[in-house]
Amino acid sequence: MSRILFTGARIMTMDPERQDCFVGDLLVEKDRIASISEKSGSIEGEQGDRIIDGSGLLLMPGLINTHGHAAMVLLRGYADDLPLQQWLEEKIWPVEANLSGDDIYWGTLLAICEMLQGGTTTFTDMYFFMERAAEAAVEGKIRAVLSRGLAGITDSDEQALREAVAFQKDWHGAADGRISVTFGPHAPYTCPPDYLRRVIEEAVKTESALQIHLAETAREVEECRAEYGCTPVEHLQRLGLFEQNVIAAHCVHLSEGDIAILAEHGVGVSHNPGSNLKLGSGIAPLAQLLEAGVPVGLGTDGAASNNNLDLLEEIRLAALLAKGSTGKPTVVPAKRALQLATVEGAALLGLDGVGMLREGYKADLIAFNLRTPQATPLFDAAAYVVYAAATADISFVIVDGEIAVDGGRLVALDEEKILSECRRRAKKLTGSDL
Amino acid sequence: MSRILFTGARIMTMDPERQDCFVGDLLVEKDRIASISEKSGSIEGEQGDRIIDGSGLLLMPGLINTHGHAAMVLLRGYADDLPLQQWLEEKIWPVEANLSGDDIYWGTLLAICEMLQGGTTTFTDMYFFMERAAEAAVEGKIRAVLSRGLAGITDSDEQALREAVAFQKDWHGAADGRISVTFGPHAPYTCPPDYLRRVIEEAVKTESALQIHLAETAREVEECRAEYGCTPVEHLQRLGLFEQNVIAAHCVHLSEGDIAILAEHGVGVSHNPGSNLKLGSGIAPLAQLLEAGVPVGLGTDGAASNNNLDLLEEIRLAALLAKGSTGKPTVVPAKRALQLATVEGAALLGLDGVGMLREGYKADLIAFNLRTPQATPLFDAAAYVVYAAATADISFVIVDGEIAVDGGRLVALDEEKILSECRRRAKKLTGSDL
Repeated sequence: MSRILFTGARIMTMDPERQDCFVGDLLVEKDRIASISEKSGSIEGEQGDRIIDGSGLLLMPGLINTHGHAAMVLLRGYADDLPLQQWLEEKIWPVEANLSGDDIYWGTLLAICEMLQGGTTTFTDMYFFMERAAEAAVEGKIRAVLSRGLAGITDSDEQALREAVAFQKDWHGAADGRISVTFGPHAPYTCPPDYLRRVIEEAVKTESALQIHLAETAREVEECRAEYGCTPVEHLQRLGLFEQNVIAAHCVHLSEGDIAILAEHGVGVSHNPGSNLKLGSGIAPLAQLLEAGVPVGLGTDGAASNNNLDLLEEIRLAALLAKGSTGKPTVVPAKRALQLATVEGAALLGLDGVGMLREGYKADLIAFNLRTPQATPLFDAAAYVVYAAATADISFVIVDGEIAVDGGRLVALDEEKILSECRRRAKKLTGSDL
Repeated sequence: MSRILFTGARIMTMDPERQDCFVGDLLVEKDRIASISEKSGSIEGEQGDRIIDGSGLLLMPGLINTHGHAAMVLLRGYADDLPLQQWLEEKIWPVEANLSGDDIYWGTLLAICEMLQGGTTTFTDMYFFMERAAEAAVEGKIRAVLSRGLAGITDSDEQALREAVAFQKDWHGAADGRISVTFGPHAPYTCPPDYLRRVIEEAVKTESALQIHLAETAREVEECRAEYGCTPVEHLQRLGLFEQNVIAAHCVHLSEGDIAILAEHGVGVSHNPGSNLKLGSGIAPLAQLLEAGVPVGLGTDGAASNNNLDLLEEIRLAALLAKGSTGKPTVVPAKRALQLATVEGAALLGLDGVGMLREGYKADLIAFNLRTPQATPLFDAAAYVVYAAATADISFVIVDGEIAVDGGRLVALDEEKILSECRRRAKKLTGSDL
């Protein structure tokens, strides 16, 4: 496999043990970052290397999306501005009931097109027909953390748990480790205690992490209090979930006690600011979570409630909402927001050697074109990415040492075919005239 | 002048008197929309016309930015995540004191590059050396509503008012009406009552509108109560400001009585959600303002507190924050948010024949490329633009009948030269090593 050498690029490593931003060279060899130099022109290229002039580029680690439902892109914009229950019961669930494995495959490919072009190099997915989502991730050459969504309230839930176990066995570590599998109990309100215990048991057996939706709405908290006499966070703690590695999505409605529990157990929170706003769920207490030492990553959620998979937007929202909702412009500064979307997101998902630019780490990285109005002038690279960058500035995306986006264009995927196939499927699924 | 014909495009008119979205043709002749047809292929092109295949395009009115300080792009990212007073006193004001007319000219050109590529066809500016900003707007072939910023607390404020009067006389209606001039008293706390009365007098003489910052921070409200025993809105009402056409920017901290006053007088509010979050000012009560019937437009504010001039981002924030802060996913639906950035923004700024696609209206329009992942599938054009679109989707921008952005590229401006000139100036102004 040939090597990729960036020369004279601005490099933002996100490595806490290294000077954070400098102009230098970076060499990718096979799936790894082979070398980083703080001096331009000091790494020599060899014949056959792809040498990229980095003089107008900013390199940083690829973005990590810690929560979503990729194939829901098929329902992007199908139903907006509706009350949550009406949105789910009248719109989303009836269509989801008819989704086929092929729909999941094509929908996930569409999501991957969008995520790669937006600089996301790892995505997290909780949905169904997950072997088809995994196939799409392998084909799309992206890193993925996948789970078969599980609920304990219908007849098919036993079957779903068996599928989840088989999926973990078949796919965890696949594609040279690009695919990880976790267990995905949907939420405390859809998974009764007994079912949740059995899911935990399977996770323990396979040393798997678990993803769950948690404390997303005020109603969820109220109903949990009515049924179990405690908050959803307390409920899950009592069930023993937090003895495992957990990624809890949303966490909008938390008491101070809840935050202390999350911190004590090192529960990872996937903060989804865009979806939380759009569904009217509220604003999660990000500044307080970080202050308490809770590990936090960022997520887009599904495109039916976002309506895109643009992680730059979530980074910006995370930083801005924390300031606006606390009245403190100093909280969640740019650099901190970027950590959530890179190093901290990777740690949350249990990905070793991912999330920063360091020699020996996986070559998952992105390059912004700095020769754009929004990148001019460039006083501070982190502030540019968080507060000003457009996804269109992203020129190169590399995952596992392979170029996925080259000059803004997808390399491995046939975008035109994927778009047209998804248009056809969305039309058929909804009976809409698109 | 040749004509521009879009054939078979999806057309979202934003015209309340017409079917809102259909596939058809649109013809631009000179500076006007000459014809719109709801049937593809029904408008015939003539020799010399620029004929654009609209089959993958969505046409809509150009976006209208109702508040900003364009040349502040020179300070984009210079100082972020700081307390407001420290940000202003230690960072922004010292540099602003050294800005030259040439800086304003080049900075405004940079802002125009960014705004045009982001689909903004009209911008609003309150700054100084405004004749240089006007020159940049003429050269950039964009529509602009300009005002010389005025404060009544220094020795130079008399001179500033004279400049404002001369600027209005020289530039209002210039460039075939593309330039409008308003008066720009900075804020109630920087303009003492006597000074403000004199500014109002000049505005009355020339039948000009006024722009002002209002109720931006909790501190402003507190200090106004301490000094005048009333809210800033009440204070301005008593001074007679609201007898004129006023565009009041920010309006974050409002009482119910304030909202009633704004509604009663038809005071236009420029909602700047991004800047309000970033500076920790808070979240303006958009849903309540709209419910009370207050006319609202959207603004980016200056890039030193945003840090970009992306109006799509403000549209999205306006819709999302209204839902998230009220807990109601039904408030400010996509279509309503788009009205703020188009028809309602134009009305706020007193621009006749601007803000929608209607025969005889000014040809200020933009076209989104729908062949992108984030535009697929397309169930609802308004929801796509508000919740999913990326600025990079904007392929064509037309202002006053002339193509300003063609296939994503600026036509009239030398972007490379403007970027490099602004980099040099930002470096010199701040003494930073960029």
